[in-house]
Amino acid sequence: MKKNAFYAQSGGVTAVINASACGVIEACRKNKDKIGKLYAGENGILGAIHEEMFDTSKEKASEIKLLMQTPGGIFGSARYKLNDINKNRAEYDRLIEVFKAHNIGYFFYNGGGDSMDTCHKVSMVGKELGYPVICIGVPKTVDNDLPITDTSPGFGSVAKYTAVSTIEATLDVASMAKTSTKVFISEVMGRHAGWIAASAGLAGVNGIKTPHIILFPEIPFDQTSFLNKVKHSVDSDGFCVVVVSEGVKNKDGSFLSEVSNKDAFGHTQLGGVAQVIAQLVQSNLGYKYHYAIADYLQRSARHIASKVDLDQAYAVGAHAVTLALQGKNAVMPTIKRLSDSPYRWKINHTSLSRVANKEKKLPRSYISKDGFSITKSCERYLRPLIMGEPDQKFANGIPRHAKLNFYKVAKLINKKFVLE
Amino acid sequence: MKKNAFYAQSGGVTAVINASACGVIEACRKNKDKIGKLYAGENGILGAIHEEMFDTSKEKASEIKLLMQTPGGIFGSARYKLNDINKNRAEYDRLIEVFKAHNIGYFFYNGGGDSMDTCHKVSMVGKELGYPVICIGVPKTVDNDLPITDTSPGFGSVAKYTAVSTIEATLDVASMAKTSTKVFISEVMGRHAGWIAASAGLAGVNGIKTPHIILFPEIPFDQTSFLNKVKHSVDSDGFCVVVVSEGVKNKDGSFLSEVSNKDAFGHTQLGGVAQVIAQLVQSNLGYKYHYAIADYLQRSARHIASKVDLDQAYAVGAHAVTLALQGKNAVMPTIKRLSDSPYRWKINHTSLSRVANKEKKLPRSYISKDGFSITKSCERYLRPLIMGEPDQKFANGIPRHAKLNFYKVAKLINKKFVLE
Repeated sequence: MKKNAFYAQSGGVTAVINASACGVIEACRKNKDKIGKLYAGENGILGAIHEEMFDTSKEKASEIKLLMQTPGGIFGSARYKLNDINKNRAEYDRLIEVFKAHNIGYFFYNGGGDSMDTCHKVSMVGKELGYPVICIGVPKTVDNDLPITDTSPGFGSVAKYTAVSTIEATLDVASMAKTSTKVFISEVMGRHAGWIAASAGLAGVNGIKTPHIILFPEIPFDQTSFLNKVKHSVDSDGFCVVVVSEGVKNKDGSFLSEVSNKDAFGHTQLGGVAQVIAQLVQSNLGYKYHYAIADYLQRSARHIASKVDLDQAYAVGAHAVTLALQGKNAVMPTIKRLSDSPYRWKINHTSLSRVANKEKKLPRSYISKDGFSITKSCERYLRPLIMGEPDQKFANGIPRHAKLNFYKVAKLINKKFVLE
Repeated sequence: MKKNAFYAQSGGVTAVINASACGVIEACRKNKDKIGKLYAGENGILGAIHEEMFDTSKEKASEIKLLMQTPGGIFGSARYKLNDINKNRAEYDRLIEVFKAHNIGYFFYNGGGDSMDTCHKVSMVGKELGYPVICIGVPKTVDNDLPITDTSPGFGSVAKYTAVSTIEATLDVASMAKTSTKVFISEVMGRHAGWIAASAGLAGVNGIKTPHIILFPEIPFDQTSFLNKVKHSVDSDGFCVVVVSEGVKNKDGSFLSEVSNKDAFGHTQLGGVAQVIAQLVQSNLGYKYHYAIADYLQRSARHIASKVDLDQAYAVGAHAVTLALQGKNAVMPTIKRLSDSPYRWKINHTSLSRVANKEKKLPRSYISKDGFSITKSCERYLRPLIMGEPDQKFANGIPRHAKLNFYKVAKLINKKFVLE
């Protein structure tokens, strides 16, 4: 009997995670003779645990195609890491119980390092319980911190957003600097790795020097050299654009954003790092500043996604199905770079154990000696990832997104599962 | 003898102010038989006062055309309002002196209400001094607060950015809400008028209810009803999207953002209003939040500009030249709406005295009874302004912007002018 398949989205979503969903769904549809129905978990892995699943096979092909243009996680994601298998084996057993009840033989898990670990463990538990499930990871993370793969789908689009926003804001502040704002600070995501901050370095082309300063989580913050560089930039160019990673740390390893403020009500609150930097600039140099915190806007900005990223997100989804049908288990599709310029790549795969819980940081060789900008080799790596502007349909002046019907799969297990 | 012309950009720049510049430049080029050279002020009106001007006539036509795709103020803008004419007549006299020295008979001033006032006064001073200059205002402001004209070029593009960002971030937070962020707050510009905040109301289409709450400067903030509405939204939809105008005020008229914080160093700092709202939500309801402050990113986002806005920005620039050649003086081109759907408009004009220093606020009838959303009539007004996606050329993964040579005009006056 044909086995059904299960797909779930995990962790922070991206502008193109639904393109991976589209890849999985379309590949399953093309292989109807081998794979039964493809169910999607409502709110990620929680959907399997609670038996809350959508039957994707009933959705219209045209709306599935629109997933290519729809940011966020269409089926709901979850920031939920399964417990340590030795401490809470019950969660894993429950997953297999649900899979068995619904005749699910394929598990596609779309997430980052943590999720790859979970996916790996599920494959082992299934085997042990005599219900083997083919478990394939589908890589995703704006942080670009998965090892082995050339890049992680989701990153290229945030990188493009960051580069584009930086050049646009630079043109703005450059025209205001004479009589108004002299320092513009843009805070970007990246708690542990500076890949997104680094991508701002792609903004400077055609002789436009921007950003003047990038602050990376990998480089301990040095207030004196930072302020000197701000002053120097204003003196020579009339203004200074600073891109700061949310994860920038002091020399003692504490986050810069940990400066605690008391508000008028006596509440302690954490300011964003952009505000800390702005305050430093103002109190030491007296320049007028503005700051932006794009937050979710950066990772959901499908309207300015990278075509390379979108293509890769789709490809890893589709290839996950190919791998499953080849009987590969506990693997993840990876992107292998064949050349920088023109950028050529192909899909490979690696075992989940090699990617689980590992973090790829920005190498020191990608950061300039003074710690404030990217090197040529970093640009060679990053530039291809932001290339191309994919289609985006609009209706009523805003992007046209997928409208699914979300057909619920009938529950077959007469027992609720309570999470620890 | 043919007179030369002078063009200057004023105040906060926009994604499309350079499209107006393009309109003025191209129209002057088409009328070479009547208008001599078109000079542009470096840093706006300061360029005239200090005799720092660029000769636009030498720039390549293809790069001038790329101004249509280039945000910010290409010649530099200035936040500089000429002094009261009775108190510092010298500034006006100096302007006329420079215009006379360079045989400038046409003054095109691209700005908001303040600039229209200045433009008007320059026309009067010129007449008095026996050197009449034809002064034409070119409307511009993201705040959409100029009277008489249907809209102000620059606004439609911020409105589109805001609507698009809001729907994209909504899709993101909707997928995270089950296990993570439940309240997303987006701070937008608008110190006195809520037009930009209102445009977020265009995000909700196809049955997607977003934003749940808009906070307008026109509606005094009511903490209890706000928190009730947040709770209700999370209870019914699982999450809540709040769009807050930077200019939201307490009942006593003070800005919400005036809550003063003391940081670790004892400095007082002004938090953004997004942070104040986030803090309120967390301390009263305990929901996990994220907030974004797009700041300059919103008004420089040419990559997601409105085609209607871009067309209008060009049209008011080009029509300013037509008006000048018709001998009209102290006037500003306006946009007249002929129908909502399909949106049809034409260019009219009005006298500068009617628009100078006047502010058009969001009418109460555009805001729902509870004060948290827009009405159908508001949507009818706003929707056309965000329609259409204009061309945007890319190179190296980022937008291709105009590269001008900025040919300096030789100084003819042997005397520096010192501003008061």
